[in-house]
Amino acid sequence: MTLWKGRFGTGGGSEAIKFTSSFPFDRRFYREDIAASIAHAEMLGATGIISPGQSKAIVSGLSRLRLLIDEQGFPDDADDEDIFSFVERRLGEMIGDPARALHTARSRNDQVATDFRLYVKGLCRRMALAICGLNASIVSVAARHPDAITAGMTHLQVAQPVLFAHQLMAYHEMLGRDLDLLDAAFDRADVLPLGAGALAGVPYPVDPKRVARSLKFGKIAANSMDAVSDRDFVLDFLYAATSTALHLSRIAEDICVLNSQPFSAITISDSYATGSSIMPQKKNPDVAELARGKSGRIIGRFTGLLATMKGLPLTYNLDMQEDKEAVFDVEENILPAISALDGLFATLEIDEERMLQLASMGNSSATDLADYLVGKGVNFREAHAVVGRVVRECVDRGTDLSTLGLDDLEQHSEAFGPDVLERLEPAWSVRARTSPGGTAPDNVASAIAIGQAKTESARKTWEARSLPWDDHDSHPED
Amino acid sequence: MTLWKGRFGTGGGSEAIKFTSSFPFDRRFYREDIAASIAHAEMLGATGIISPGQSKAIVSGLSRLRLLIDEQGFPDDADDEDIFSFVERRLGEMIGDPARALHTARSRNDQVATDFRLYVKGLCRRMALAICGLNASIVSVAARHPDAITAGMTHLQVAQPVLFAHQLMAYHEMLGRDLDLLDAAFDRADVLPLGAGALAGVPYPVDPKRVARSLKFGKIAANSMDAVSDRDFVLDFLYAATSTALHLSRIAEDICVLNSQPFSAITISDSYATGSSIMPQKKNPDVAELARGKSGRIIGRFTGLLATMKGLPLTYNLDMQEDKEAVFDVEENILPAISALDGLFATLEIDEERMLQLASMGNSSATDLADYLVGKGVNFREAHAVVGRVVRECVDRGTDLSTLGLDDLEQHSEAFGPDVLERLEPAWSVRARTSPGGTAPDNVASAIAIGQAKTESARKTWEARSLPWDDHDSHPED
Amino acid sequence: MTLWKGRFGTGGGSEAIKFTSSFPFDRRFYREDIAASIAHAEMLGATGIISPGQSKAIVSGLSRLRLLIDEQGFPDDADDEDIFSFVERRLGEMIGDPARALHTARSRNDQVATDFRLYVKGLCRRMALAICGLNASIVSVAARHPDAITAGMTHLQVAQPVLFAHQLMAYHEMLGRDLDLLDAAFDRADVLPLGAGALAGVPYPVDPKRVARSLKFGKIAANSMDAVSDRDFVLDFLYAATSTALHLSRIAEDICVLNSQPFSAITISDSYATGSSIMPQKKNPDVAELARGKSGRIIGRFTGLLATMKGLPLTYNLDMQEDKEAVFDVEENILPAISALDGLFATLEIDEERMLQLASMGNSSATDLADYLVGKGVNFREAHAVVGRVVRECVDRGTDLSTLGLDDLEQHSEAFGPDVLERLEPAWSVRARTSPGGTAPDNVASAIAIGQAKTESARKTWEARSLPWDDHDSHPED
Amino acid sequence: MTLWKGRFGTGGGSEAIKFTSSFPFDRRFYREDIAASIAHAEMLGATGIISPGQSKAIVSGLSRLRLLIDEQGFPDDADDEDIFSFVERRLGEMIGDPARALHTARSRNDQVATDFRLYVKGLCRRMALAICGLNASIVSVAARHPDAITAGMTHLQVAQPVLFAHQLMAYHEMLGRDLDLLDAAFDRADVLPLGAGALAGVPYPVDPKRVARSLKFGKIAANSMDAVSDRDFVLDFLYAATSTALHLSRIAEDICVLNSQPFSAITISDSYATGSSIMPQKKNPDVAELARGKSGRIIGRFTGLLATMKGLPLTYNLDMQEDKEAVFDVEENILPAISALDGLFATLEIDEERMLQLASMGNSSATDLADYLVGKGVNFREAHAVVGRVVRECVDRGTDLSTLGLDDLEQHSEAFGPDVLERLEPAWSVRARTSPGGTAPDNVASAIAIGQAKTESARKTWEARSLPWDDHDSHPED
Repeated sequence: MTLWKGRFGTGGGSEAIKFTSSFPFDRRFYREDIAASIAHAEMLGATGIISPGQSKAIVSGLSRLRLLIDEQGFPDDADDEDIFSFVERRLGEMIGDPARALHTARSRNDQVATDFRLYVKGLCRRMALAICGLNASIVSVAARHPDAITAGMTHLQVAQPVLFAHQLMAYHEMLGRDLDLLDAAFDRADVLPLGAGALAGVPYPVDPKRVARSLKFGKIAANSMDAVSDRDFVLDFLYAATSTALHLSRIAEDICVLNSQPFSAITISDSYATGSSIMPQKKNPDVAELARGKSGRIIGRFTGLLATMKGLPLTYNLDMQEDKEAVFDVEENILPAISALDGLFATLEIDEERMLQLASMGNSSATDLADYLVGKGVNFREAHAVVGRVVRECVDRGTDLSTLGLDDLEQHSEAFGPDVLERLEPAWSVRARTSPGGTAPDNVASAIAIGQAKTESARKTWEARSLPWDDHDSHPED
Repeated sequence: MTLWKGRFGTGGGSEAIKFTSSFPFDRRFYREDIAASIAHAEMLGATGIISPGQSKAIVSGLSRLRLLIDEQGFPDDADDEDIFSFVERRLGEMIGDPARALHTARSRNDQVATDFRLYVKGLCRRMALAICGLNASIVSVAARHPDAITAGMTHLQVAQPVLFAHQLMAYHEMLGRDLDLLDAAFDRADVLPLGAGALAGVPYPVDPKRVARSLKFGKIAANSMDAVSDRDFVLDFLYAATSTALHLSRIAEDICVLNSQPFSAITISDSYATGSSIMPQKKNPDVAELARGKSGRIIGRFTGLLATMKGLPLTYNLDMQEDKEAVFDVEENILPAISALDGLFATLEIDEERMLQLASMGNSSATDLADYLVGKGVNFREAHAVVGRVVRECVDRGTDLSTLGLDDLEQHSEAFGPDVLERLEPAWSVRARTSPGGTAPDNVASAIAIGQAKTESARKTWEARSLPWDDHDSHPED
Repeated sequence: MTLWKGRFGTGGGSEAIKFTSSFPFDRRFYREDIAASIAHAEMLGATGIISPGQSKAIVSGLSRLRLLIDEQGFPDDADDEDIFSFVERRLGEMIGDPARALHTARSRNDQVATDFRLYVKGLCRRMALAICGLNASIVSVAARHPDAITAGMTHLQVAQPVLFAHQLMAYHEMLGRDLDLLDAAFDRADVLPLGAGALAGVPYPVDPKRVARSLKFGKIAANSMDAVSDRDFVLDFLYAATSTALHLSRIAEDICVLNSQPFSAITISDSYATGSSIMPQKKNPDVAELARGKSGRIIGRFTGLLATMKGLPLTYNLDMQEDKEAVFDVEENILPAISALDGLFATLEIDEERMLQLASMGNSSATDLADYLVGKGVNFREAHAVVGRVVRECVDRGTDLSTLGLDDLEQHSEAFGPDVLERLEPAWSVRARTSPGGTAPDNVASAIAIGQAKTESARKTWEARSLPWDDHDSHPED
Repeated sequence: MTLWKGRFGTGGGSEAIKFTSSFPFDRRFYREDIAASIAHAEMLGATGIISPGQSKAIVSGLSRLRLLIDEQGFPDDADDEDIFSFVERRLGEMIGDPARALHTARSRNDQVATDFRLYVKGLCRRMALAICGLNASIVSVAARHPDAITAGMTHLQVAQPVLFAHQLMAYHEMLGRDLDLLDAAFDRADVLPLGAGALAGVPYPVDPKRVARSLKFGKIAANSMDAVSDRDFVLDFLYAATSTALHLSRIAEDICVLNSQPFSAITISDSYATGSSIMPQKKNPDVAELARGKSGRIIGRFTGLLATMKGLPLTYNLDMQEDKEAVFDVEENILPAISALDGLFATLEIDEERMLQLASMGNSSATDLADYLVGKGVNFREAHAVVGRVVRECVDRGTDLSTLGLDDLEQHSEAFGPDVLERLEPAWSVRARTSPGGTAPDNVASAIAIGQAKTESARKTWEARSLPWDDHDSHPED
């Protein structure tokens, strides 16, 4: 069934719909669509646009239809143009004539925007809660290993010793920004377009505020043409998801590196690794790699929708039908990646001893030696040059700063005294970095406590976000 | 079942596989995988790496398995890691112990590359044949309307009159380049990686040339590490598909514009248009719009894989598992778009009268007037300036070049004579452009004839491209 | 000069720097860098990390250096590695030894992040003020033409009559969302990283709060590793710029379409159009086209940085040096595009008569007829079908709804009465759409008033945003 | 000066050109533009379209103009719309009236396409020669270290021992494919569009074959509308450049990893590394990192142009002006990256001893043990499982396969005999992989010889590619 045959001869749309049908994917909206249709029908009844009887029949029919689909799914042979046509057709089969009044004062243009906004709001919540879970697992690793010192790296070169917990809390910061972006995306999606009609508004005394209350939308759209042609809320969501995916990819890269045999700093649980069909010894960090790979995929999906929206004239164009699968791709790829990494961290073992070895590589105390000289009155640039020459001598000799004695150092500057030797210890280096945000143990301990509280608070906030479903812990499709 | 449990404790990979399983999508390869496994097993038998009996049992089992899947599809409860694990498991269930020899001298790394290359080769052919079909339909519109003059546009402004057939032949050129890109992509994919093993080659006397002959590969891989880490053949294919999609998007834009009421130059068949749920009069060019929109999607998929491959160390990394769905997305979105536009063109009506009106708009004979003056000895830049002033006068007066008389023109230059008036006719303009590649009717007629021959020749070439399937008109999955 | 020669032999970095030098572009930061260095030096002095004399000498030297560059620019033969090296070298040449203390408790890693954040904050303001200007011009067109009715379009097909002012206010909404995104981007950039050192914090009693006050940063970074490896603030800015560019591209597309001869609804001022080297009559909407084209460019720049950041290990990697030119590209391409469209709108003429003709095309009153029938008690889906059949008859006969009489209509439904005829008027259609956000004149008038107030308020807010420059109307580089 | 003022009032284009001027970047084309104009003018003279005297004056004037620009560059105050306007204006100033005939039978639309194709052809050659240089350096490292064994990696986990030379030859293969893509891009660009005029061809007896001969184009355009609206040759070039950049990014990642202290397998020459402003010991692989980062940038540029071209109507639109800077970005970023990596490889030192240690890590002989069992009659899947259990025991005990004795192995399978112990040697593993493309030393030696010959042959072929410049070793702009 199509909703628009009158103007066409027999076979109108017959070939087009084979290519343009969105039913295979927009059926995922059925709960959103039925909820929105119920709210619309109730409003139509309350405002007298349709009769109370029609309204009641529609609402009751739709409620039954939702349960039916919940239980039985969709028939294999349904070849409707989209979920909207399916619902209107099935409603007609169930309640007869009143179904034909449902579409009063509404177009698919404002309807699909409404459904999709509901969906995106729900998915924001699911993404945010998953991130809270991952962040809690990351912080818990930090809390379990508050003193482990490892090699802080720049350019994949050993730079300065840091607490591994400090590195974990950097991940926590990154993911915290993703929660902010999801927050903004939720807010952006939280605008009801219903009432915009095809594009110009509708000539009926509709009451969008009532519909917004029913569907728990915070705002209503200010301009009907914008309401049906705007997909910024989708782009905002995809940006938040892309940002999350980028962060996962960086965390995943670190995992792959730290897990590589020459590093051997961490052990991934057997449950979160896989093997090789040919090499019996292999235990691969597949979860991390795939999460990293999927960040490319989601960059692509996001870029794809940006390119699709580029240069479209107002208002609605069918190009915009491409908006949905990009979002579903986040649901199917990034949401599981967050959870998989959550599990990986929750079961991660770290080798504190090996980490300390890594922290001592690469003359990592060089900056501390330079800072020592500054303390003795040498200006920093000169101090840097002196220590640079010490390092160069080490490199030429095939040794390392950690093996030097006071006499070796004294040859390069008179400012070196016996108290310099403790500066060669990674532990000294870490303890000394007490600047705000630095890696000193007290700083990090406090950051862990704050991080735990923030994550828990974010989790509660997101759980409290209201959506029109009774059960808001998960999306009904799960 | 997994192929690698020995090294792991109970539960090895249990959580990882939930996230990393590729079976839900790589099952689409089953014919490729089974064909490649048959060729591999035959080679293992022929070279004595496994016994003739093992080889025979495997080949026979695999042939049966393929028929079984052809007929029954995949069981709903199969939770294998990938299609390779599924096939090896099912083979074992069917033929017992010999199945355990199949993976000798092979890794999934070289196996998946082999399967995917087979798949891409097949898809190149299907894409190319679809483009040949579309190109044939486009040329046939040109052949049906060889004399229709329309507005040639630059900057969406009427520029100069052209034959509409000339514009159609521009589309034909664009799509012809896509056939070239698919040709190159086919060639790039036509390299057998089997024998590379995990990455280093295999310590068995394998005979890849024999396998290549069986599977109809033209070349064998020169470097085993490259063989398993290279996905350039996928990128080449995606580039060809993106180029095709871009061309479709430009053609689609022209269709949408020419179909807009103020243009009203074409009529899309009712079968290839759709309506509105709210506006009874609407007949929308949905097929063209969605084809245009999907070009954004495929730009995204291509970009996504580029981003995924960026910065991966040698050799295989699981990130690369993301390569397949991008290709399937082409199959499901661009291939149907080509066919839908094929149908749209095959049933397209054009309004020659309206096109001629469009061709006369916008003072489109101005260049002809300037060229007339050049013929009278005025240099071109001066001629351009004179006609510019004539046009400006028309604009100021609210008239148009087509309404001017000789006396109007003479006021701007003495070089104008009575023979100038014919230059104001679109037909004159078109006839005059006899430069190679220009829009003069004879040129275009000859381009049509050449285009028809080229398209037919391309079709035959692609049909003759051999793949390991008997029935090569379509992919078995169709 | 480089800052790090001690550890290297002669020629250290000699070849690398040819490729990696960022001085050709990061010199654009010189005011930010000098301001940040002044604030750093003052803090070093105030906390006793360096002597008061050193601090004073540095601050005075830097102030002079800034004036010098303001006046004379950069010497042609400067081949420093980056702006930081340049500044430290020149300072040394100017004040001697104290310059060598400037880099105490600081790394280029936290320094470049500080400079870039300052720069992005300034650019957010310039972008936002430009958008306010464009939005003011758009609203002013609406205010000048409050009653002009035009064709509201979906699928580039005439859909329903709307006020052109309503369409303009849709643009206003779109651009308003970009102001929101810039707001968020400003906030994201408003975090001081200085004090993070190379990555681990610094072993000095630094006072980042003091530095933040000097540089007018709202927050200080919570984690030093994150502080030097985070480029989310750049991505947020690029996302806001991409969103703006997308909106410009859609507005530009509408301009190109409305300006095309078959539409002829608007006239672009001669100052904002260009001509053709060969076709004397041409007047092209180049500004709109190029703005549309540049949206593709900025999608690319954004995607490019997303891809660059993907999969980078913590913390700083030189890949991240690619972050700056993407931002400069916005400054050089999108900022001028906003201004150019501002001018185009400020000088735009519209043809109200032609717009009304467009509004009557394509049986645009069909929905009103259906809604009329609903008012007479027909259910909507039936009403839609009836009107569909009326339209079909018109199409078959080559006529249009606007030409029908009552008797034509009565043949399709008894519900039609004489009062239906006014429904065929675009003006009736527009007046009837009084739903919130609809195109009814009162709605639009009120939207214009609100829009003017909002734009003015946004302008004031952004102008009040404090940056460390005295003169905050424009970036010093202008 | 503009070329089109007649139709406009005073101030026509005055504001537009501020935004749309391409002169700041398309001046880079001046040699191409002047060469093409000379060929055009000679043809106009030879065909009698302009007089011999005009032709001669133009050609002589243009030749002088080119020398002038070669020597003096462009005046600072030139504010022409584009390079074409500049050249025509300057020519007029030099030779007077004849200059006004130059633009006969030509539009900027076919002119810019001609210039750009010439430019892209030249850049293809420069890119290809740079790649040949890099490939030669890579092969020379392989030739210097034919026997060095290192850890072949999958998933950044030690997989199997390989010759490091084998890995280098994988890079050689990758870059060889880029030469193929550049070959195709050159061929695609090698089509002369001149004669297409604005879009419809020209009404003059032009001789494009003559022009093609002068400019050394292989083909002439078949369709004038396609000729001016096609930018596929740019996309083909950008794809080749993106593919090259991706390969550089993968090679760069390997360099960064192998150079990281826990690997310590290679030493980058001091000339190709840089240091830190704060950490005196740092020596960073900046060249590799930036090359990797720039791959993201070029993905973006490519994506950007794809997005820009999407959905453009035929024929020329100003959006397409965005095509040039993407190409220049390749010239300025990827071309130098190739050369920088060339130098890095030419001066690279490798630590053969450390590589051998890496090759022994991670139980890398496990596959050899399984293959040993296959040789003793165990089927492969069983053999894999047995060795998997051996490895698991090693892991549990904290030991490694390399430390096992025969008795340890015999506990897992009776098939193990004393000859198994040599299988634990990396050297055995490498020697055994004699399959075509495998890492066995003879294979690799032969691949090196072939690689050297292929690179040298490619270099000669590209050097012989004819362009209209006398000096074809470098672009005149260099």
